[in-house]
Amino acid sequence: MANTTIRALLSVLLLSLFLSSFVAAQQGTSSQSHQTRLGEARQCRIQQLTASQPSRRIESEGGVTELWDEYEDQFQCAGVAAMRNILQPNSLSLPNFSPSPRLVYIQQGRGMVGIAYPGCPETYHSRGQQSSRGTQGSEEQQGGRRMADQHQKVHRIRRGDIVAVPAGAAHWCANDGNEELIAVSVTDLNNQANQLEHKHRSFYLAGAQSQEKSTQRATRTESEQERETFNNVFQALDENMMAEAFGISVDVVRRMQKQDNRGLIVKVQRGELSMIRPEEEEESYEHQGRRNGLEETYCTMKINQYLDNPREADVYSRQAGRINTVNMHKLPILRFLGMSAEKGDLHPRAMHTPHWKMNAHSIVYITRGEGRFQVVDNNGKTVFDDRVREGDMVVIPQYFTAMKRAGQNGLEWVNFQTSTLPMESPLVGSTSAIKGMPLEVLTNSYQISYKDARDLKYNREEHVKLVPPSRTSSS
Amino acid sequence: MANTTIRALLSVLLLSLFLSSFVAAQQGTSSQSHQTRLGEARQCRIQQLTASQPSRRIESEGGVTELWDEYEDQFQCAGVAAMRNILQPNSLSLPNFSPSPRLVYIQQGRGMVGIAYPGCPETYHSRGQQSSRGTQGSEEQQGGRRMADQHQKVHRIRRGDIVAVPAGAAHWCANDGNEELIAVSVTDLNNQANQLEHKHRSFYLAGAQSQEKSTQRATRTESEQERETFNNVFQALDENMMAEAFGISVDVVRRMQKQDNRGLIVKVQRGELSMIRPEEEEESYEHQGRRNGLEETYCTMKINQYLDNPREADVYSRQAGRINTVNMHKLPILRFLGMSAEKGDLHPRAMHTPHWKMNAHSIVYITRGEGRFQVVDNNGKTVFDDRVREGDMVVIPQYFTAMKRAGQNGLEWVNFQTSTLPMESPLVGSTSAIKGMPLEVLTNSYQISYKDARDLKYNREEHVKLVPPSRTSSS
Amino acid sequence: MANTTIRALLSVLLLSLFLSSFVAAQQGTSSQSHQTRLGEARQCRIQQLTASQPSRRIESEGGVTELWDEYEDQFQCAGVAAMRNILQPNSLSLPNFSPSPRLVYIQQGRGMVGIAYPGCPETYHSRGQQSSRGTQGSEEQQGGRRMADQHQKVHRIRRGDIVAVPAGAAHWCANDGNEELIAVSVTDLNNQANQLEHKHRSFYLAGAQSQEKSTQRATRTESEQERETFNNVFQALDENMMAEAFGISVDVVRRMQKQDNRGLIVKVQRGELSMIRPEEEEESYEHQGRRNGLEETYCTMKINQYLDNPREADVYSRQAGRINTVNMHKLPILRFLGMSAEKGDLHPRAMHTPHWKMNAHSIVYITRGEGRFQVVDNNGKTVFDDRVREGDMVVIPQYFTAMKRAGQNGLEWVNFQTSTLPMESPLVGSTSAIKGMPLEVLTNSYQISYKDARDLKYNREEHVKLVPPSRTSSS
Repeated sequence: MANTTIRALLSVLLLSLFLSSFVAAQQGTSSQSHQTRLGEARQCRIQQLTASQPSRRIESEGGVTELWDEYEDQFQCAGVAAMRNILQPNSLSLPNFSPSPRLVYIQQGRGMVGIAYPGCPETYHSRGQQSSRGTQGSEEQQGGRRMADQHQKVHRIRRGDIVAVPAGAAHWCANDGNEELIAVSVTDLNNQANQLEHKHRSFYLAGAQSQEKSTQRATRTESEQERETFNNVFQALDENMMAEAFGISVDVVRRMQKQDNRGLIVKVQRGELSMIRPEEEEESYEHQGRRNGLEETYCTMKINQYLDNPREADVYSRQAGRINTVNMHKLPILRFLGMSAEKGDLHPRAMHTPHWKMNAHSIVYITRGEGRFQVVDNNGKTVFDDRVREGDMVVIPQYFTAMKRAGQNGLEWVNFQTSTLPMESPLVGSTSAIKGMPLEVLTNSYQISYKDARDLKYNREEHVKLVPPSRTSSS
Repeated sequence: MANTTIRALLSVLLLSLFLSSFVAAQQGTSSQSHQTRLGEARQCRIQQLTASQPSRRIESEGGVTELWDEYEDQFQCAGVAAMRNILQPNSLSLPNFSPSPRLVYIQQGRGMVGIAYPGCPETYHSRGQQSSRGTQGSEEQQGGRRMADQHQKVHRIRRGDIVAVPAGAAHWCANDGNEELIAVSVTDLNNQANQLEHKHRSFYLAGAQSQEKSTQRATRTESEQERETFNNVFQALDENMMAEAFGISVDVVRRMQKQDNRGLIVKVQRGELSMIRPEEEEESYEHQGRRNGLEETYCTMKINQYLDNPREADVYSRQAGRINTVNMHKLPILRFLGMSAEKGDLHPRAMHTPHWKMNAHSIVYITRGEGRFQVVDNNGKTVFDDRVREGDMVVIPQYFTAMKRAGQNGLEWVNFQTSTLPMESPLVGSTSAIKGMPLEVLTNSYQISYKDARDLKYNREEHVKLVPPSRTSSS
Repeated sequence: MANTTIRALLSVLLLSLFLSSFVAAQQGTSSQSHQTRLGEARQCRIQQLTASQPSRRIESEGGVTELWDEYEDQFQCAGVAAMRNILQPNSLSLPNFSPSPRLVYIQQGRGMVGIAYPGCPETYHSRGQQSSRGTQGSEEQQGGRRMADQHQKVHRIRRGDIVAVPAGAAHWCANDGNEELIAVSVTDLNNQANQLEHKHRSFYLAGAQSQEKSTQRATRTESEQERETFNNVFQALDENMMAEAFGISVDVVRRMQKQDNRGLIVKVQRGELSMIRPEEEEESYEHQGRRNGLEETYCTMKINQYLDNPREADVYSRQAGRINTVNMHKLPILRFLGMSAEKGDLHPRAMHTPHWKMNAHSIVYITRGEGRFQVVDNNGKTVFDDRVREGDMVVIPQYFTAMKRAGQNGLEWVNFQTSTLPMESPLVGSTSAIKGMPLEVLTNSYQISYKDARDLKYNREEHVKLVPPSRTSSS
């Protein structure tokens, strides 16, 4: 027993350690040329929030990468970079890693994600007997003993999933479905894990050159900017030392270093993706019992969580809609990322009542429908009051008051948050601060009658955060 | 057992998580216009510390708010803002919250504090049978079932208490005593909890406009400055959406948004405060056993600690005085604040011997008497050597060496510290570093005899931090 | 059981607390005059790394202190200061402390280190019966009861040890061996423990003036610079108040404040060091069982770890060499420092294959031999490709890819790292990310055959990080 306890304590300790380096959102500096603007932005002295669209577009052989302008004030305030990847069927996003943690929402399609942690065991045995299915069967026979491939866990992902990618973890993603795979991601550049400059960067273990097409403004420095954002880690290494290090020919090294214009996402030879065996069968098992988080090691942790199941909603109203959240208690790997997410679904004309996040910035991406947002900054000034539509992204900084109302067809969004355990303060409903105050405090604060104070406290007591459309003042 | 352990572990983990975001004092930037000065101040390159008085004064209907100049070098170095609130009897400090944690010392009077955490249960049932005592009895009858009011815990506070207010927690304070309630507070602006600019701000859920009178220097921008510091969160929200969200009339919404010149502290209708039932009876119970900190949730945590009980002193000398401390072990909520405090009481002419804090800045407020402080900076330069008197505030940065001597009538102070578990290194006495060294290290370091080295180590071995007046060289 | 668990939990909590303030490497600002350069350096936008030598040299009575230029780009990027102390036999490095944690590697010789924590018990009884051995025996007799000296733990250190000095802990070091004691140290200026400016500073409890001789460039401000780096904490304190505080004569106080040109390291009277009893006998005991870390308190924690034992190597290859690491699991006190270290030993012509650290900057000091380093920055640019020799120091920032090859006589180094639990990502070998990926990801990423992909994954599968000389492509 003592041993078990001590082991458990050590796990806690280890987790706390990770936590203490990951959790804290840092106020960072960034690229030199933007330093002045940053000085202001870091303080979230924002004149206006914007419903933003991506400003850069990188076309690759197997898909498209779209980037929001990370130097836009609202993204600078939150210290994040946003990106949307569209993978065509039978395509592969090349292996890469970022020095900052990243949350990804799968907006459409299905695919596989592999994360290769250094030192984790290769517990997946792919192909084995089916090896004859391979197109290069003859070559495979040569390998003898090595016919069966071993690799680390491969995760099945699908529309509605949030996927966590820890800082520094090399990962790849393949679309083995029949439709385009659309993945929207937010990277927390200010995260403590990143001891380098707070700037969006991805390091590629393969490829990484492509034709960029700017959607909004084209400047001569854009290809330069891209080279800064995406680059190949092998390219500058001495090819002879590389060959010796890997024990392979210089020819193969040159292929590893080559930037071949296929870009960041490449086509895969037909049939090959089917040879990789993701964790399909185990998924249900995982949903049942293994989610403890203390016994799981880094190597075997679940990286994704389905956010579109109404039965698992954290807030549910038959008339108004629902909110599904995922934080470090539901998906323990989020502890290492310092991030979390929520998915909201508002019925037509329903309202997400005024609230603010006490310990996180929110990066809201509209996944479906349209509606109206109002956001008030911490000087009491309205910094956003406008329509938002599918594909828009808006940052809502910590303590800024926000309210949303769905349009005629409802409104769905995913909210990426810079805390593992965000705390929301709603103005209205059973969990609001006003409901926690004595009536006398309300009557004297607002100079209203007891009846009005009671209405204020109790008229929405059956609601949590969301209210259905069109009822106004009630008994 | 296993379950209990796991549950306990999860609590620890949760606490650690909070800790990791709260504890770390951040080196922050602040309002743009002060940026240059800040650049230096952040490094605590201080030419001179000052015995400071408040520089701004805000008069409200029910009292006065006095603010120290947060841009003064010494406050910038420590990253804190200081404030003194004076509430007249039968007055209410309007509900508000700050994005940074705050410690408050009750210098005079008694009152009630309510903190309304989002999501915490309304466990206090006020009024009930006594409802007929209310002045608006007729109205109350209409409510039927709702005659009895339910609200979150209300804390009784009194002279000598340290009160902890977590970042983002909406709180109010009422003076239901017979004398003025004087509360001195320090807010840790650089706290990690605050991801916004590091500037003193309070967000009011009601009211918040008043007539400011500057005590020292009047500039045209002061009312503007006040609007930046204190503002009403409802004001800019769409009144119709608000009415719909709360399910109340637009009239009541307008009252909530109204800034009515009553200011930050308002008068309460006679008799109404007596209807709120604070935790009076439970307090003794709490003093006995419930202070575990692991089993307590955020909702029910004790927020205050009495610091003027000599029998609970951490350092006590019949001839020299005493020091009472409160850290996260004594008051677990301090874990979430990253702050702690100590109360000192020196007898006439007694000395608080030279020492420095290893992991905290100290913000010292003189509560009674007068005396002499000497402070030496980390370049070995004297940055303060002067008299201090009741009402003065002095910052002593981390590692700066300080010594205090009481005047003819003794000296009392409260010290707010930017660490949950401050470590002090005293030069003298049984816990000093010098006492921990071998004699040979001292004789060779100072080129003194064994006898002198022994005197240095042992002449004060019966003392801890404080020495009584007028003995010089001993034995 | 419940009690034990709770106690253990509290320990964990306490440790987590410490962790959360120590672990996080902060991006700091530093001395004003260097602010602009810093702005860039903080982002590690480094054009060129350098094999650096110390730029300043301070001669003292008993030895020499050599300092690397902390404003050099590479040190600014890592936020550290490096120093080499050479103590002559029978000399004492005067008691001092730094506001930032420090790791020390003993390159040559043997000695004693004492760390005096405020409040820790004096558990070591030195001299006792042997007191007659003292040269001032007559004086000692006067002390009677005090003949035996009590002090805190004294640690025996020797060549190959890493020694941990926590922030703020007063420590001294004595050379009681027969050869020069050479100690190379790295101080983590950006550590969260330091709330002051991020600059190298040592506060001396004795002495601290000396003759500085600049080795490379002499400017008029250097002695000023030294006074800023090293200063005596007693000097500015009022001598009468000091005398009263310690209960000693003003004469002795003056000796404590005196800066006598002996400098930072002084000669010790012959024979006196032999009277201090270090923990010699206990060391073996400690190596067996007491390394738990949860039961140990701050006061009794082991501060050193021997890194030159091949049998304790973490990576060992008969043909290629070995790597010994020490992190917070092996030496629990490192939890409070936020640092760790590794010692590498490469056989002639062997290679440390390409890799990067995921969560730490590396500060590499060559302890023996020579070899070639190649380092590629995070823009894919080679920032170092040169010979390194004994005595050189090179910083390798987080995520920069590095490879080393030993010269004809092998290569040894010690690597100081800014994380308590560094994670390394090797490109090659059994723990590499590439080995964790399915073959199909490799064939499609690099457009290579299955055979080449298999070679890439498995040709070095028997190696970890190090490969022996001169084999190229294999099997």
